[in-house]
Amino acid sequence: MKPCVIQVINPNTSLAMTETIGAAARAVASPGTEIVAVCPSQGAPSIEGHFDEAIAAIGVLEQVKQGKAQGVDGHIIACFGDPGLLAAREVASKPVIGIAEAAMHMATLVATRFSIVTTLPRTVIIARHLLQRYGFEHHCAALHAIDLPVLALEQDSGIAQNKVREYCIQSLRQDGVGAIVLGCGGMADLAQELTQELSIPVIDGVSAAVKLIESLSALGLTTSKQGDLDYPIAKPLSGMFSSLR
Amino acid sequence: MKPCVIQVINPNTSLAMTETIGAAARAVASPGTEIVAVCPSQGAPSIEGHFDEAIAAIGVLEQVKQGKAQGVDGHIIACFGDPGLLAAREVASKPVIGIAEAAMHMATLVATRFSIVTTLPRTVIIARHLLQRYGFEHHCAALHAIDLPVLALEQDSGIAQNKVREYCIQSLRQDGVGAIVLGCGGMADLAQELTQELSIPVIDGVSAAVKLIESLSALGLTTSKQGDLDYPIAKPLSGMFSSLR
Amino acid sequence: MKPCVIQVINPNTSLAMTETIGAAARAVASPGTEIVAVCPSQGAPSIEGHFDEAIAAIGVLEQVKQGKAQGVDGHIIACFGDPGLLAAREVASKPVIGIAEAAMHMATLVATRFSIVTTLPRTVIIARHLLQRYGFEHHCAALHAIDLPVLALEQDSGIAQNKVREYCIQSLRQDGVGAIVLGCGGMADLAQELTQELSIPVIDGVSAAVKLIESLSALGLTTSKQGDLDYPIAKPLSGMFSSLR
Amino acid sequence: MKPCVIQVINPNTSLAMTETIGAAARAVASPGTEIVAVCPSQGAPSIEGHFDEAIAAIGVLEQVKQGKAQGVDGHIIACFGDPGLLAAREVASKPVIGIAEAAMHMATLVATRFSIVTTLPRTVIIARHLLQRYGFEHHCAALHAIDLPVLALEQDSGIAQNKVREYCIQSLRQDGVGAIVLGCGGMADLAQELTQELSIPVIDGVSAAVKLIESLSALGLTTSKQGDLDYPIAKPLSGMFSSLR
Amino acid sequence: MKPCVIQVINPNTSLAMTETIGAAARAVASPGTEIVAVCPSQGAPSIEGHFDEAIAAIGVLEQVKQGKAQGVDGHIIACFGDPGLLAAREVASKPVIGIAEAAMHMATLVATRFSIVTTLPRTVIIARHLLQRYGFEHHCAALHAIDLPVLALEQDSGIAQNKVREYCIQSLRQDGVGAIVLGCGGMADLAQELTQELSIPVIDGVSAAVKLIESLSALGLTTSKQGDLDYPIAKPLSGMFSSLR
Amino acid sequence: MKPCVIQVINPNTSLAMTETIGAAARAVASPGTEIVAVCPSQGAPSIEGHFDEAIAAIGVLEQVKQGKAQGVDGHIIACFGDPGLLAAREVASKPVIGIAEAAMHMATLVATRFSIVTTLPRTVIIARHLLQRYGFEHHCAALHAIDLPVLALEQDSGIAQNKVREYCIQSLRQDGVGAIVLGCGGMADLAQELTQELSIPVIDGVSAAVKLIESLSALGLTTSKQGDLDYPIAKPLSGMFSSLR
Repeated sequence: MKPCVIQVINPNTSLAMTETIGAAARAVASPGTEIVAVCPSQGAPSIEGHFDEAIAAIGVLEQVKQGKAQGVDGHIIACFGDPGLLAAREVASKPVIGIAEAAMHMATLVATRFSIVTTLPRTVIIARHLLQRYGFEHHCAALHAIDLPVLALEQDSGIAQNKVREYCIQSLRQDGVGAIVLGCGGMADLAQELTQELSIPVIDGVSAAVKLIESLSALGLTTSKQGDLDYPIAKPLSGMFSSLR
Repeated sequence: MKPCVIQVINPNTSLAMTETIGAAARAVASPGTEIVAVCPSQGAPSIEGHFDEAIAAIGVLEQVKQGKAQGVDGHIIACFGDPGLLAAREVASKPVIGIAEAAMHMATLVATRFSIVTTLPRTVIIARHLLQRYGFEHHCAALHAIDLPVLALEQDSGIAQNKVREYCIQSLRQDGVGAIVLGCGGMADLAQELTQELSIPVIDGVSAAVKLIESLSALGLTTSKQGDLDYPIAKPLSGMFSSLR
Repeated sequence: MKPCVIQVINPNTSLAMTETIGAAARAVASPGTEIVAVCPSQGAPSIEGHFDEAIAAIGVLEQVKQGKAQGVDGHIIACFGDPGLLAAREVASKPVIGIAEAAMHMATLVATRFSIVTTLPRTVIIARHLLQRYGFEHHCAALHAIDLPVLALEQDSGIAQNKVREYCIQSLRQDGVGAIVLGCGGMADLAQELTQELSIPVIDGVSAAVKLIESLSALGLTTSKQGDLDYPIAKPLSGMFSSLR
Repeated sequence: MKPCVIQVINPNTSLAMTETIGAAARAVASPGTEIVAVCPSQGAPSIEGHFDEAIAAIGVLEQVKQGKAQGVDGHIIACFGDPGLLAAREVASKPVIGIAEAAMHMATLVATRFSIVTTLPRTVIIARHLLQRYGFEHHCAALHAIDLPVLALEQDSGIAQNKVREYCIQSLRQDGVGAIVLGCGGMADLAQELTQELSIPVIDGVSAAVKLIESLSALGLTTSKQGDLDYPIAKPLSGMFSSLR
Repeated sequence: MKPCVIQVINPNTSLAMTETIGAAARAVASPGTEIVAVCPSQGAPSIEGHFDEAIAAIGVLEQVKQGKAQGVDGHIIACFGDPGLLAAREVASKPVIGIAEAAMHMATLVATRFSIVTTLPRTVIIARHLLQRYGFEHHCAALHAIDLPVLALEQDSGIAQNKVREYCIQSLRQDGVGAIVLGCGGMADLAQELTQELSIPVIDGVSAAVKLIESLSALGLTTSKQGDLDYPIAKPLSGMFSSLR
Repeated sequence: MKPCVIQVINPNTSLAMTETIGAAARAVASPGTEIVAVCPSQGAPSIEGHFDEAIAAIGVLEQVKQGKAQGVDGHIIACFGDPGLLAAREVASKPVIGIAEAAMHMATLVATRFSIVTTLPRTVIIARHLLQRYGFEHHCAALHAIDLPVLALEQDSGIAQNKVREYCIQSLRQDGVGAIVLGCGGMADLAQELTQELSIPVIDGVSAAVKLIESLSALGLTTSKQGDLDYPIAKPLSGMFSSLR
């Protein structure tokens, strides 16, 4: 099996979160897999709404372009809204996986229904739209927001982590679910501990995405270039976007 | 009734198309309405896929920000994929309407089922996703692509226009629809003529969006700032995005 | 812009409610728009269930026929169940808009999800069915009934109005919605005040429908006469229905 | 088992069709069941659109009221659009079944997917809406219209009957269905012959509804009077509707 | 009317429950109908999950085969998960009805929305999947589990029966439903009493299925042998399955 | 990384197909993964309908039980109907993956829409039901049956293989899809060649399932034992099923 280089793109500019995400990716990577954790050089320090996502999408595309030039074997979009996913698939020749889809797919494989625990209430609609797009509305029993910003997860206080834990426990009690999906890349480091403690699959999308990229790679499957995910039509991009082509 | 200034944003950088769109908007604007047709200073000359849309979304946000600073009463995103729609709603204090949603909403008010005639086959998936998001899957009987690029609509040859016309006629014959939605801002000037010729509502989203903005404005309704469309959370945007806040 | 005459049909026989509805329509009508508020000469004093709706539908058709003879430019069905909507579209040559659809469409343009506050619990199922028919099930987060009859809204006590207000506030707190749809023509006069007070779009379908008729009219769009909304097939109607043709 | 009197309401005023329908009902009625076939004294001679249905609904309600006064054990609405179904359920104390729902329910019990063969193309939308309302969209693979008016089925030429037969055969070949639903009360007499000839369940809703009424009656089940199908709220109905209460 | 023999198959091996079910079936059977209540000679004493259902399906198929050899006129699968339903339809030449589908169908005929009261929480997912398959998701407002095993219903203490009654009352208060479906064959004897006491249709699938089989039989309708419910393709079954062909 | 033993269960008794499937599994297994390909000692030689599936489910459960006793790290159900999937998840403590779900999940990661090419027309309904259950209805554009039995794929003539190839090519031309899912375990050996030849992802579920098991295993995720996939409730199973517990 040839080595596999996976580019893990944290779509925000937080270096701390990039490290958290990179570590989570490395923790599950196969022996032959190399994880390259990156974040855009410009953009927003956290992604907490549609506006932030639009900006993040450009950062994702820049990084995908760079990763492609470096010959990586797959790209991960490590933000729970999967910003720029289909655009990135157009650009890439190799597989691209969003962590929301990764976590949701995995959840349906180990439980009949799952819940999602995310950060701010305003991001819940993003998860709702993804559930609809991906086809998992019937598999998601509830969405919970801990009502703390994304970057609270990078603080040492443990407050955000405790809230995640509380919401997971509460969801277990009342939602009748068999699994919980963590709805933020910044929660990547909590999944395994919570899985152990709660005796229920608590799923992080970053690690899930690593395995899906490895899987597609090993299967010889890559983003289809037939039809609507074909490479973007070549056209002159002006201004700050000129570097994107 | 106080005058209403509507910013019509062509998300691509084609000035010709910006003019086409602006003219279509003016043609239906109420006496008290002023149309300001703009396009991003940088971006892609046409929007024909997810990648182009991601770029277009940034252009849309820049223009919404500018329009907001100028005190416009509403913003139209004049590309059939409605790129950046929810992000723009976050940024704006006034209503924001995409031309795809505008055309689809209007179509459901005059017919039980409609079809869509768009440009390149690869953009069909974008329309499909919007139909799902907006709730109109059951109202859309068919999607057709004329298989010509967006900018072919700006050429004088009339080839693209003829193809649009042919597909409309064909759709009428075989799809059992009562209305046709034109799936590109560049088709804005064709709607009225086709409506006359085919004796069926052929709907252009640009003009439809103008009336919806005027309507919301007159009703005193604007984008809800309660919940998930609230203004983006203030945070330092770096690099080329710093001007967006 | 040529003047536009809009017939606002209150499908029940309450003159007080016809006035409320007419006033709400006039309050938002464009300068060139004339509002003709009518109600059937015979029928039910309020519409609170499927049986009442069946009766109301006939009244609607009679009025549409009269309005058509008078050359009006559009018809509004001012009862939240949109009774007789598709039948009226068959009869009319001009646009016909129901206030439920009008309010729901507008709500989706200013918020990602809305709730509905209606009168009696037994009318909730009617709204549910409309949400399904129109495609807005995913956009409606909750339905609330104030549990007072329609005509309580015409009393001076303010009891019903207070209940509407309470339910709106409660919905804001618990439903995670960005807009509220008022589910009864008799609530038309409450929308603007509540919109102000609650800082959230509170949407009345009567005024929304006025703007949609004006919009379609200005766009040169009218009910499609191709296909299933074509004029009713001419046939001898007997008895009390003979006047309907 | 006590005798069961079933009122079969042909919602149009065609006496010939009332007889066809009555005969179809009697052909499958249990020994203890009496069929009373009626039609409204006033209304439309055939139901071929939403307008006709609105009129038919009143005729249905009048007849349900009469049948209720006569103490019948159940009511059948023998028009494929099930006009006035929920209104009739409000009025009735006994079960009310529409022939569209009856045929569709039965079809799902003998095949995984069915098609519908109806009369005029403009009635297809009515069947579509019922499929959605009843939950059978996934079970219906195709809808076909023979493009002949309802009353063509009452002519002796056999032309309409032949067309029904042709469409059934064609549907069998191309739709991959296991059963066919006849989409008009006037086709009630064709079902058994076609079932024999085509070796596939060809389902008539009139006879199906008879058995469902008998079934509910024997089970001691009747229209729920808890909640939204409770008797209409008593209120003064004016004009031609005064006799409805 | 020729006599009708209905085989009621209790898919578990509990003789007591087989008797309960048989009695419920006989209580509603028409004079000319003979009920043959059977259960598999081998299998599980109760069906409370997917594993139990897989076993039950084989028992059902054995019994259907035997019933077919005996020339019965229809088969009922008397377990709320309808185990083996489509497989049994392949094997049978006569109609096969599951009690879950029977109850759900009947519920939609007497109420706009229903709830389900079942046994163990782990069986709720089975009902959910059936609602989706059958198309009744929109008609089911809530699912409740009394949290007692199936066989508790066969004990004389009345504890399980009381719990069923409590949940029915609670559902009536909070779910806004017009009917309640009892979600276990072992509750068959409770339906009529609860219907009386609660003045709402409380529906047992066993008795409902009896009437549906009688109905299909009288209509000359049987499981379609065209297409995907055709008899199983003849092939050598080995080992313990050799007796199934 | 500790070695991973994956039990690949061919639910039919064909040894040739078991070998094909085992080889396909081994071809993509990671270095540390051992593939144990098994089939039930008794059952049906091919699975081509619901009846065959019911039998296959028991074989699957027997093998899962044996694999569990042997301490395997995951189980694959290598028949495109995923027979016994949820039952197997109840029995297993380790992950269980069906090849239909595996292929469908993977297809949605590399294309916006896919088609399915399966064997006999009667199995199409099984795939339809799975698409609905798994949430992928919107992602599947078309289902095609080559109209040859499963075991034709094990013959040396190449006829079946050619038909698969033809249908893939035809689907590419007309369905507008970006990927093709092979709808039978017996097609496992065709995927890679067709992927190469057609320049589109042609997806085999067996190999996809291997990677998903490896992925879940590496992630420390396993079938949730909280809730409805908990181990079957212990109860005396009689007769031929006694060995299942």
